[in-house]
Amino acid sequence: MSRTPPDPAKSRIARTMGRAKVLMEAMPYIQEFKGKTFVIKYGGSAMADETLRQTFAGDVALLALVGLQPVIVHGGGPHITRAMGQAGVEPEWVDGLRVTDAETIRVVQTTLAGEINPDIVRLLGSHGAMAAGLTGIDGSLFIAAPRDPKLGFVGEITQVNPELIQRMVAEGVVPVVAPLALGEDGNVYNLNADTAAGALAEALGAEKLVYLTDVEGLYRDLGDRDSLIQRVTVEGLRELVASGSVSKGMLPKLGSCISAIEAGIHHAHILDGRVQHALLLEIFTREGIGTMVMP
Amino acid sequence: MSRTPPDPAKSRIARTMGRAKVLMEAMPYIQEFKGKTFVIKYGGSAMADETLRQTFAGDVALLALVGLQPVIVHGGGPHITRAMGQAGVEPEWVDGLRVTDAETIRVVQTTLAGEINPDIVRLLGSHGAMAAGLTGIDGSLFIAAPRDPKLGFVGEITQVNPELIQRMVAEGVVPVVAPLALGEDGNVYNLNADTAAGALAEALGAEKLVYLTDVEGLYRDLGDRDSLIQRVTVEGLRELVASGSVSKGMLPKLGSCISAIEAGIHHAHILDGRVQHALLLEIFTREGIGTMVMP
Amino acid sequence: MSRTPPDPAKSRIARTMGRAKVLMEAMPYIQEFKGKTFVIKYGGSAMADETLRQTFAGDVALLALVGLQPVIVHGGGPHITRAMGQAGVEPEWVDGLRVTDAETIRVVQTTLAGEINPDIVRLLGSHGAMAAGLTGIDGSLFIAAPRDPKLGFVGEITQVNPELIQRMVAEGVVPVVAPLALGEDGNVYNLNADTAAGALAEALGAEKLVYLTDVEGLYRDLGDRDSLIQRVTVEGLRELVASGSVSKGMLPKLGSCISAIEAGIHHAHILDGRVQHALLLEIFTREGIGTMVMP
Amino acid sequence: MSRTPPDPAKSRIARTMGRAKVLMEAMPYIQEFKGKTFVIKYGGSAMADETLRQTFAGDVALLALVGLQPVIVHGGGPHITRAMGQAGVEPEWVDGLRVTDAETIRVVQTTLAGEINPDIVRLLGSHGAMAAGLTGIDGSLFIAAPRDPKLGFVGEITQVNPELIQRMVAEGVVPVVAPLALGEDGNVYNLNADTAAGALAEALGAEKLVYLTDVEGLYRDLGDRDSLIQRVTVEGLRELVASGSVSKGMLPKLGSCISAIEAGIHHAHILDGRVQHALLLEIFTREGIGTMVMP
Amino acid sequence: MSRTPPDPAKSRIARTMGRAKVLMEAMPYIQEFKGKTFVIKYGGSAMADETLRQTFAGDVALLALVGLQPVIVHGGGPHITRAMGQAGVEPEWVDGLRVTDAETIRVVQTTLAGEINPDIVRLLGSHGAMAAGLTGIDGSLFIAAPRDPKLGFVGEITQVNPELIQRMVAEGVVPVVAPLALGEDGNVYNLNADTAAGALAEALGAEKLVYLTDVEGLYRDLGDRDSLIQRVTVEGLRELVASGSVSKGMLPKLGSCISAIEAGIHHAHILDGRVQHALLLEIFTREGIGTMVMP
Amino acid sequence: MSRTPPDPAKSRIARTMGRAKVLMEAMPYIQEFKGKTFVIKYGGSAMADETLRQTFAGDVALLALVGLQPVIVHGGGPHITRAMGQAGVEPEWVDGLRVTDAETIRVVQTTLAGEINPDIVRLLGSHGAMAAGLTGIDGSLFIAAPRDPKLGFVGEITQVNPELIQRMVAEGVVPVVAPLALGEDGNVYNLNADTAAGALAEALGAEKLVYLTDVEGLYRDLGDRDSLIQRVTVEGLRELVASGSVSKGMLPKLGSCISAIEAGIHHAHILDGRVQHALLLEIFTREGIGTMVMP
Repeated sequence: MSRTPPDPAKSRIARTMGRAKVLMEAMPYIQEFKGKTFVIKYGGSAMADETLRQTFAGDVALLALVGLQPVIVHGGGPHITRAMGQAGVEPEWVDGLRVTDAETIRVVQTTLAGEINPDIVRLLGSHGAMAAGLTGIDGSLFIAAPRDPKLGFVGEITQVNPELIQRMVAEGVVPVVAPLALGEDGNVYNLNADTAAGALAEALGAEKLVYLTDVEGLYRDLGDRDSLIQRVTVEGLRELVASGSVSKGMLPKLGSCISAIEAGIHHAHILDGRVQHALLLEIFTREGIGTMVMP
Repeated sequence: MSRTPPDPAKSRIARTMGRAKVLMEAMPYIQEFKGKTFVIKYGGSAMADETLRQTFAGDVALLALVGLQPVIVHGGGPHITRAMGQAGVEPEWVDGLRVTDAETIRVVQTTLAGEINPDIVRLLGSHGAMAAGLTGIDGSLFIAAPRDPKLGFVGEITQVNPELIQRMVAEGVVPVVAPLALGEDGNVYNLNADTAAGALAEALGAEKLVYLTDVEGLYRDLGDRDSLIQRVTVEGLRELVASGSVSKGMLPKLGSCISAIEAGIHHAHILDGRVQHALLLEIFTREGIGTMVMP
Repeated sequence: MSRTPPDPAKSRIARTMGRAKVLMEAMPYIQEFKGKTFVIKYGGSAMADETLRQTFAGDVALLALVGLQPVIVHGGGPHITRAMGQAGVEPEWVDGLRVTDAETIRVVQTTLAGEINPDIVRLLGSHGAMAAGLTGIDGSLFIAAPRDPKLGFVGEITQVNPELIQRMVAEGVVPVVAPLALGEDGNVYNLNADTAAGALAEALGAEKLVYLTDVEGLYRDLGDRDSLIQRVTVEGLRELVASGSVSKGMLPKLGSCISAIEAGIHHAHILDGRVQHALLLEIFTREGIGTMVMP
Repeated sequence: MSRTPPDPAKSRIARTMGRAKVLMEAMPYIQEFKGKTFVIKYGGSAMADETLRQTFAGDVALLALVGLQPVIVHGGGPHITRAMGQAGVEPEWVDGLRVTDAETIRVVQTTLAGEINPDIVRLLGSHGAMAAGLTGIDGSLFIAAPRDPKLGFVGEITQVNPELIQRMVAEGVVPVVAPLALGEDGNVYNLNADTAAGALAEALGAEKLVYLTDVEGLYRDLGDRDSLIQRVTVEGLRELVASGSVSKGMLPKLGSCISAIEAGIHHAHILDGRVQHALLLEIFTREGIGTMVMP
Repeated sequence: MSRTPPDPAKSRIARTMGRAKVLMEAMPYIQEFKGKTFVIKYGGSAMADETLRQTFAGDVALLALVGLQPVIVHGGGPHITRAMGQAGVEPEWVDGLRVTDAETIRVVQTTLAGEINPDIVRLLGSHGAMAAGLTGIDGSLFIAAPRDPKLGFVGEITQVNPELIQRMVAEGVVPVVAPLALGEDGNVYNLNADTAAGALAEALGAEKLVYLTDVEGLYRDLGDRDSLIQRVTVEGLRELVASGSVSKGMLPKLGSCISAIEAGIHHAHILDGRVQHALLLEIFTREGIGTMVMP
Repeated sequence: MSRTPPDPAKSRIARTMGRAKVLMEAMPYIQEFKGKTFVIKYGGSAMADETLRQTFAGDVALLALVGLQPVIVHGGGPHITRAMGQAGVEPEWVDGLRVTDAETIRVVQTTLAGEINPDIVRLLGSHGAMAAGLTGIDGSLFIAAPRDPKLGFVGEITQVNPELIQRMVAEGVVPVVAPLALGEDGNVYNLNADTAAGALAEALGAEKLVYLTDVEGLYRDLGDRDSLIQRVTVEGLRELVASGSVSKGMLPKLGSCISAIEAGIHHAHILDGRVQHALLLEIFTREGIGTMVMP
């Protein structure tokens, strides 16, 4: 009965039907995740490569637009190193760990809050998202104590006050959080961004905790690229950590994954941030990419 | 910098990026139309052909899911004719118009409210939309007077009470409206579905009024298929109607388009309902399809 | 001290004082039941006889007006039988039960949703109530599975989603519900209206569940009209059912009464719908009429 | 079809149907006035006679229960005179008007706020209404200036702050207001209760302003009891006042009626408070009793 | 760097800095108590002495202004005695306790509700607080039974309905409560104001219960003024009462303190109302004045 | 009557009464300004001197605590100059104005958002205020166009979107705003902080716009310190500007004052930020300090 209309519009219509099919396939995921909070640790290549930056921002803006609630926590490693070089600050070491003295925390704060954070807010804004930047100092989001006196202003989170974030999220704003904390002594402390993301996900009762990394995911055998793990339980993760088969930089992420899942977060993900639209791919397809940690 | 991961996942990722691109292209339209109401007159092939029914329902569910507010008004021509035949009701004619006597309005009501309307609600529900059916009698949505005493229970709308619809829409429900009215005399009246859709769009202050028809759009010259009109102003439409170059069945639609635009609706559309995903095509691409009426 | 005014107005004033007395007597019941939900199964003579229809509608409109929250669930027996005859559908029987095949469910749906339901909505509207009709398909109110494969589209309720009803009730709308369900397989199913009313009362946490029937109430001894039961506990009811002294048509009502009371509904009532204003009589007098089931 | 049930319940049912009829007749008035505010000046016999006190309280409680919003302003003439006698306060006169000196205003306040007001609150409470007493001092409801320096603490209203009353009314509380005012000089002032009721009705945008008096209504000719006026416009009222055919005690009422109607109140009423249930009679019957002032 | 500006303004600025310091010192207390309810029993010298009345009113107005929620319960001893004398009511005694017969409760009501209560409301209003007076009869705040049939209308609280108070407090209004109760028999009853304050504090879940008295506080040894107790636990208080070292008039206060603390009130205070600004002193300094009862 | 209690507590009580007097004097100002927004430009000595920083933060925290709504806009002059020196960025000049090239705007952003802003947030937090930092980029607060192509990234505000600020203020959060803007071209632009404060005050419909400066106020004659102006109208200000008797750095402030007053802001103030508690002094005393601009 639906007689086809004449030629001129045909190819356009064919194209449209392809598009419509894609939109239709996204529907069940939007239905499932609408109104749910996703804490996304943003860093690595996804933050360094211009193309990946643009696709990341588009992904986040789309998620927010269709009703999901992304919250971004970013790191700042390379920028800070560069800024410290420019400022001529010499790193000092104790037991193989870098000491964050007053001068260093100053550079860290300036770079995180003054450079990286506004850039991400602007990037998201240019894709149509209503974003707002904050540090863990705003509204006393993160309260911290010194992790080790010898390390200086490196903080261990002792309290999370997520009210300000919750209000923003409820208003459709995408919060972009720099991993600083207000010390119990009134000073600024630097946080491990992976840990901060995990703690925030817990405090928010997030649906998912997502790490954008520069690896494909977890390997059962670090040397064997075919041993990529797609799904792992908290118990499995503990064993993997115990086995020593995990790179050092991955440890805070895995600790946070374990802690977050135990605190009731549904899923934690280690994604390959080097893949364009990794976020959409993970959230909008059933198989997903990278490694998923489950209860 | 974003080193490509190894082969196995490659094609999946390529496919994803294509998908992501499509989703990205839909963003500006979702941003523009979020929270806006679309009154869609549903009928013709789009209601008769099973494939078109499914794609229509998917389109409506997707619109609702991403935050647009579709309201469906349906007709019932062929079903009613068939039902009258089955019921053995003989149509009577006055001045070339069918008389809607008590027996006929009974069949009309039964078919619209009992057959067509629940089927559409069920169809939308099966695509994940929270839909609810109502007739113009519910909550006194449409109040009508007899259009012509000789025609019996054929109504002319004298009042629209859209509160019930507005509450549903505000709750994320998709209203599906059968074109019946409560007569000022307490009887049920039949309405022209095209006119009912237009009156409802006006009362709701809708963003768009959309007619799904069985034609490609309006032609400047009825005999010349190359004379399809893409955009026309209200004045142009008046001239077209005055020129006589419009088929009789199209007249109520065009009258409603003129009236709706004059009442402040931004755009009215005559779409080809025989094209799959005509709704998405119209709403999610700038050029659109069919004929658009503008102020 | 209150000197009586002169004659002319006297009889009018006497009449008024009588009226005022009646209104005063209704006060404690309105105070007790304000804001409480009453699920009323409507059927039998109260739905067939024109005078009873009018008094029923007036009663419901008054209840809603003074702040009680009536919800109507209607049946459709005689209408459906008549409609099946008109449509020439031959009933088929399995083990003494009528089979509801595809053709039959079509007639059932059309009659319930297209004939009976809009008529009740219109009737209530003509008494000033803001009513709205829906079927168990709208908003997925009732989800059902087949009761017995041999019986076809006869449903057993597996889930009740009362949100849409709750929103309507909160807005002062009187919902009128047709006993259809959305099957888990996507098909339409027919429900026993008595059972549907009970399930809805439970899901709504209703104050009362009221059955308008064509009997005076329950009899302790079916053959003895003097054995009418005014009050009975759930235990008493179980015994009565076990004793066999209950007519077959009454069984679904009694089962629902038992289940509703156990689910926390305060009272269930078997009323004689052949009495004008039976609803007012029951709700606005302490003794009430018919049989009341208590915890 | 609706076969009558057997005898025993018959008379009870007949009685019920009479009741139901009365309730039905009240419906259109409840529908019309639901959510509307009625300022009722309470005084005279209705406040002195015990039977009339009880029927008045019942009427007010019923109005509040079915959704109307009564606000009571009471006077206190006889109580104050009696209290002044008991306190041995000698009235002083200037130009034929009683002077309200410091001692007098003390007695006035004590009697209004300490005697009459709590009694009315208690009376209403005993009929199930949630009532709360206040004076024009509470929440600075009435601000006043001296009406005439020679008269002492007799106030002329210069400002009405109805917020506290509006909040109470919105919560379903019946405010009972004593006609005192906070002077601009910080002292307490006595107000004419009729004027206070009118000013409050204006400030609240009331639907009706009702005076319960000890007369049947207004007479066109004071000496002729057959000249009772049922309806009069503001212009007619002005003429009546100008004609001198109005008793002195009626003047503040009529002035307030004129002012209230001009300020947009729909109707003002002079009722005979000596008639039991005069309020119900006026509000729940179309003809009403007493005299109605219209725009 | 902050060069001092020239002379003329100097002394003004010095004065300001002193003020600023005072305001700063109040901050932590405001922060701690914002949004918390304080039930204050008002009576004795603080109610009799004009200077103390003004400083009390200023204190309450300031507390309300900066966000604390004071609720005042007042007594009326001396006024009532005086009023009874004026009214020529002879007190009658049973077992050493004064009998409150019908005539007496009338004087009590008139004095509390008509004299004392409006005066306090006006006093608070003159300091800018939005105050409203009520008795325990309004909104059925206090329901009482006779304490002892021989004593007449002396009530024992059997129920507290604090809704009306809660609504006022939520709106920023300061409730001023006269210690009357609605008897279960419909009569007015007189309450001990100390007990009423305690019961109200419990019902409101108040932060503090404060008694303004005419003593410095509790003494460990009634004869030794150096034995003033600054802090005491509920157990300590019980022992003190048991030891007999407490004056009779203090007993209801202490009983209420014990009961309130056990019901979850954080602190109860016996303050010296003869000290100007005793309330501010207690609430805005850590050491406080008078005796504090703790869990 | 209020007998003085014995000695020991005397001096404490005397101290308290002094304090109470100060608190009382602040009351009328709190009453007047509660719920009103104050946009405060923070800079100069008040931001550089540690003592002044602490008293400023205390003042802002107190204002927020008692219900006023302060919004802080800060500048960054000296910090930026220092940071540019550290970064080795050589300032370039065009027509006597510094060019803000890409490198410079980078330093500006980093210093404002990364250094100054978090420090102020932390400072306020340490005084108990719930503060949150943002730049004009967050939520697209300030949209700007280039002021002069030759000057590079120096912005002229073309749009203010104060929604995010309004939400924060409504939640009791103190927003701290860095004067950056999102360019219409997507780049970051630097704003004059004085102008940004004025534009924000206008967009918020603020009660007052306050400039904390390093001068005592405006002088009628720049060379004569006795010519300090206490109050000036917009017209007077225009004349003053026209007379040339205004220092260059003061011009943006004065232009903003004129524009703000014309846009409906009630008062604008030029305060001497070198005076401790200048804010409290201005807001909590009638005479105030510095120069007040009025309509």
